[in-house]
Amino acid sequence: MTTEANSSGEKPMASDSDHAIRPGTVVLVGAGPGDPDLLTLRAARLIAQADTLVYDRLIQSGVLNLARPTAEKIYMGKEHGHHTRQNEINALLVEKARQGKSVVRLKGGDPFLFGRGGEEVEYLAEHGIPFDVVPGVSSCLAAPLSAGIAVTHRDASSAVAIVTGHSADGHEDRVDWEAVARIGTAVFLMGVHNIDTIARKLVAAGRAPETPAAMIQMAYCAGGRVVTATLATIAAEVRLAQIQPPAVLVVGEVVRLREKLQQLVAFNPTRNVAEGEQQWQFPWKP
Amino acid sequence: MTTEANSSGEKPMASDSDHAIRPGTVVLVGAGPGDPDLLTLRAARLIAQADTLVYDRLIQSGVLNLARPTAEKIYMGKEHGHHTRQNEINALLVEKARQGKSVVRLKGGDPFLFGRGGEEVEYLAEHGIPFDVVPGVSSCLAAPLSAGIAVTHRDASSAVAIVTGHSADGHEDRVDWEAVARIGTAVFLMGVHNIDTIARKLVAAGRAPETPAAMIQMAYCAGGRVVTATLATIAAEVRLAQIQPPAVLVVGEVVRLREKLQQLVAFNPTRNVAEGEQQWQFPWKP
Repeated sequence: MTTEANSSGEKPMASDSDHAIRPGTVVLVGAGPGDPDLLTLRAARLIAQADTLVYDRLIQSGVLNLARPTAEKIYMGKEHGHHTRQNEINALLVEKARQGKSVVRLKGGDPFLFGRGGEEVEYLAEHGIPFDVVPGVSSCLAAPLSAGIAVTHRDASSAVAIVTGHSADGHEDRVDWEAVARIGTAVFLMGVHNIDTIARKLVAAGRAPETPAAMIQMAYCAGGRVVTATLATIAAEVRLAQIQPPAVLVVGEVVRLREKLQQLVAFNPTRNVAEGEQQWQFPWKP
Repeated sequence: MTTEANSSGEKPMASDSDHAIRPGTVVLVGAGPGDPDLLTLRAARLIAQADTLVYDRLIQSGVLNLARPTAEKIYMGKEHGHHTRQNEINALLVEKARQGKSVVRLKGGDPFLFGRGGEEVEYLAEHGIPFDVVPGVSSCLAAPLSAGIAVTHRDASSAVAIVTGHSADGHEDRVDWEAVARIGTAVFLMGVHNIDTIARKLVAAGRAPETPAAMIQMAYCAGGRVVTATLATIAAEVRLAQIQPPAVLVVGEVVRLREKLQQLVAFNPTRNVAEGEQQWQFPWKP
């Protein structure tokens, strides 16, 4: 959401003076999947400029380290099942902006896919705070990619459903499981806690139990791991491997690309930490 | 797909020596939506290092300008309806790698969402060419974001379907339209040519004709524009505004956030190029 890019698609790489955050402004910045090297150029620059950073649970220290030493860094993560802090976050952003700070609101992945970024800008707009939003690399694509899985494939899938795993919580299940089960590839963000429910509901909705599935923990972060199984067995495998959030679940024939690549390319032996668990690895890395 | 990020999530920003492309290697690099400022740090560095760049139709000159002046830049874009060049692209990547070049295969958006990136790495693996893949900012999220649309909203939508507009071509329609119609938000990439078919099929599949819809042309590029309408009227509006590819279609209640923001925030008057068309603008830019 910027005007510069629009007025000139031919410009060379933006200089450091472009997109500076003005005092009293909040910029929602997508921090990508975790590795600072996967920040956008614009995001890295804004983080380095901000007076105040307000960040989530998913933000890695390598990203925060790009901030000025004197920058104020405020953790406003929401733990599983605790969503009531959103009001506090909204109020904090307004407060800091009114103090004349240049504020970067760091959100894991992309700021407008889940994570309530839309609500935050609405609140800022209602309170007259100037804002901007910078898109980021979303884990919904990057986590499967890091495991050798393209979420679409000419033969296997021409559509992808992206669903929040929190949707499977009993009291807020508004997902049309039958519809999701009929889309070639389904990607669930934040699906670790509800993996049993997700797998069970997909099968009940008509997805074949033998459909390949992969759970990718902490893509592009320390502690990254991948578990592959089928829809029938993925919940047990994820438990066995003690996969922890954040993790991304992919369901669909596209998961087979990972197996195919592993067969074709020489790779380091997996270092199994526990049975049924594959040590995070990149077999095709030169 | 890299090992470094895994071994240390705590590292500072990668130095220029990290992730250098070795001779004889192909790296698929997501170029994001167009603006060079939305490249990842890793992508920008790899582009600046490559001996050879093989790029698609959607790659903007601002991105190519980051390459070394002596780098070989090979255009391998596929025009609408001509997909037979994929074999040529695969062969070219292998040929250049075997010549000992460090090759960057630039793909618009993310390399593993549509665009056949999975097939390319499969081919490279089959031919013993070392490869890597770098995720990018996908237009499926960034284009709506640039128009003030979050594809998910706590109240409006907890799931997103991402579909290629090419799927609506008669001979390759493998989309389950009823399933897509039942997902809260639907995003179509490359949907300009088939906008009539897409809108008609969604309504036939049960989506309400009054569902808000937005078509975003060339997000983050020169010539960016947005048209908002309903599912019943979007095809006519897109034609009237002469929207050209690449453009992203969003269907769902989430489109209303754009209207809401425009009501709340002071903004420059729209410069209507044609009736029913909104000049690309970022009303909430400070």
